[in-house]
Amino acid sequence: MTGKPDQSVTKSDRIVISVDAMGGDAGPAVVVAGLAMSAKKNPQLGFLLHGPAEELAQLVAKRRILDGRVEIRDSQKVVTMDDKPSQVMRNGKGTSMWSTLDAVNKGEAAGAVSCGNTGALMALSMLRLRKMPGVNRPAIAILWPSRNPQGFNVMLDVGADVRADAQDLLQYALMGTSYVRNSMNIRRPRVGLLNVGTEAHKGHAELKEAHTLIAAQAEKADYEFVGFVEGSDIPGDAVDLIVTDGFTGNVAIKTGEGTASMLRTTLREAFEYSVLSRIAAILAYTSLSRLAKRIDPRRVNGGVFLGLNGTVVKSHGGADATGISAAVKLAFLLAEQGFAEKLAARVASVVELTQNDADPQDAEHPTK
Amino acid sequence: MTGKPDQSVTKSDRIVISVDAMGGDAGPAVVVAGLAMSAKKNPQLGFLLHGPAEELAQLVAKRRILDGRVEIRDSQKVVTMDDKPSQVMRNGKGTSMWSTLDAVNKGEAAGAVSCGNTGALMALSMLRLRKMPGVNRPAIAILWPSRNPQGFNVMLDVGADVRADAQDLLQYALMGTSYVRNSMNIRRPRVGLLNVGTEAHKGHAELKEAHTLIAAQAEKADYEFVGFVEGSDIPGDAVDLIVTDGFTGNVAIKTGEGTASMLRTTLREAFEYSVLSRIAAILAYTSLSRLAKRIDPRRVNGGVFLGLNGTVVKSHGGADATGISAAVKLAFLLAEQGFAEKLAARVASVVELTQNDADPQDAEHPTK
Repeated sequence: MTGKPDQSVTKSDRIVISVDAMGGDAGPAVVVAGLAMSAKKNPQLGFLLHGPAEELAQLVAKRRILDGRVEIRDSQKVVTMDDKPSQVMRNGKGTSMWSTLDAVNKGEAAGAVSCGNTGALMALSMLRLRKMPGVNRPAIAILWPSRNPQGFNVMLDVGADVRADAQDLLQYALMGTSYVRNSMNIRRPRVGLLNVGTEAHKGHAELKEAHTLIAAQAEKADYEFVGFVEGSDIPGDAVDLIVTDGFTGNVAIKTGEGTASMLRTTLREAFEYSVLSRIAAILAYTSLSRLAKRIDPRRVNGGVFLGLNGTVVKSHGGADATGISAAVKLAFLLAEQGFAEKLAARVASVVELTQNDADPQDAEHPTK
Repeated sequence: MTGKPDQSVTKSDRIVISVDAMGGDAGPAVVVAGLAMSAKKNPQLGFLLHGPAEELAQLVAKRRILDGRVEIRDSQKVVTMDDKPSQVMRNGKGTSMWSTLDAVNKGEAAGAVSCGNTGALMALSMLRLRKMPGVNRPAIAILWPSRNPQGFNVMLDVGADVRADAQDLLQYALMGTSYVRNSMNIRRPRVGLLNVGTEAHKGHAELKEAHTLIAAQAEKADYEFVGFVEGSDIPGDAVDLIVTDGFTGNVAIKTGEGTASMLRTTLREAFEYSVLSRIAAILAYTSLSRLAKRIDPRRVNGGVFLGLNGTVVKSHGGADATGISAAVKLAFLLAEQGFAEKLAARVASVVELTQNDADPQDAEHPTK
């Protein structure tokens, strides 16, 4: 319970992830189960775990694999799914979420994972970690199953902020490019700007302006700008990165998730329909498992907050142990690669690049 | 080739649909094949078919079922997928699309079907049919496969206009309610307003304003207002009607379509993977066919333009004969029920209801 992590956690080969045990739909037991899965797969991982110390100590004690790899930080207050971000900004101190982020701020952990309330997590992240110099609006980037060889595309913003002007969209393109490069090892990512059609005359005025800005930085920032893309390109293979405002991105991923979930239910019903189809399901078990794994939303669990001084991974509120483990894995990978530092360098270089091109009229488009 | 349909088409038990043979990706042969499918299923149907007369006459002559049920209207000009709506508004006269809509305007047909360029079709529809009194922005409504007993939800706007203010969203709720009632026989539709969360504090200011307006009209206009819904509710069973602006709606349906299409490909690959999975696919054939039919986008082909003086069904540009036939069926059903007249009556009654409540500040939100 001291301010410093104990020696077993911080020995030099360990990468420590700060984890919020509270705020998820399934409670802290599932979070601890997720940490145990991660610890088993990756001996380099250590954890700071935030929440009611007594309850957490009991849960951790049950998992031998976590012996000496988890330091518990007591916090009795919890941010709930119903708390408004504005309330949390005023009264968030002392919550497990605050404590989780504070450890990253103090350099005690290389990244944070929480499955709590997204709006509150972003608000507290901005308060504790602050925006990276040169970033106006931080964004949430997610992975989406796609037809690309890497199996996933990145999309941002999916809900950090419902507004985004042309300059914000340019920053999303730059931060997203850096994320794709580091998480997928694609040297020159292909970038698309989400619109209602691929023709240049379509969409809002802000989008046309963003099109110009993003096109202008492509060479210097080393990405390929494909231009406008449509919703159907989010799971497609035309681009690696989809840039959009948080409102549109949030609706798009939830529509895609809902559609995929409806199809899974319908598929299950189809196989349960008759004796013959049940036999078929048994025969097709391996193939269907492969399919299920490919489109399993738990495998891609983890929205990454980009544009802050530190890495924060937002896990789905309804995540199970597999989902938590996926979010931890993502935080680990980004920490291992020094992603936060690379992103900061990238943004800084672009702030220099663009400060002469900045359009003062942007201030006239405060809302989408 | 005269201005009047011939007697075989207009005999009293026929409902005539005006069909644009041109502008689809697959050309007029597929459109004619679709009409033949429709004509076979429904003896009440007659057609006015618009495009190059000589080519169309040859195609129609090959289908005996169409004997005496198709009148061809010659037009040599075609609106292409690349034409801008603004160009088409200036130079659209003489195109097959113009001619298709003109027949509805003159009362020669009970509805129009086109698989051409959406933006151009809406622009010409506004020019030829005019907006219904009291409607500011017409909208495109589509059917989306859902968990509801009726199998589908309605969503609008999906791309008629990228902007919509609070008053527009209220009109969408009213027009959409009327469409759900007439196409699905649901007396008191449940209406949801699309947002990034269900909590009252989320989203743009315009959405909060629209929330208030739509809630206020629920009782008089006889719908149940569920409040804010999320993207995951589009294929869900919480509401029958989803109201949103054309930008968000368009991105959402294309994301959903793209995700469904990726899943279908992945499923097919899973079944082709091994001998065992191929045998399973054969055993599961009936169940999989039922699934495929349930989620077949061709079965729900047809966006309906709401808010015009006449019914226009926009078929998908890539529609095959089955898709064209589905669009014709929709135009027929709406014509048979006198939907255009019912909608006009509904909008007129609401214009009366709301004209005292109208908020003059709406003019301050020119975008989104």
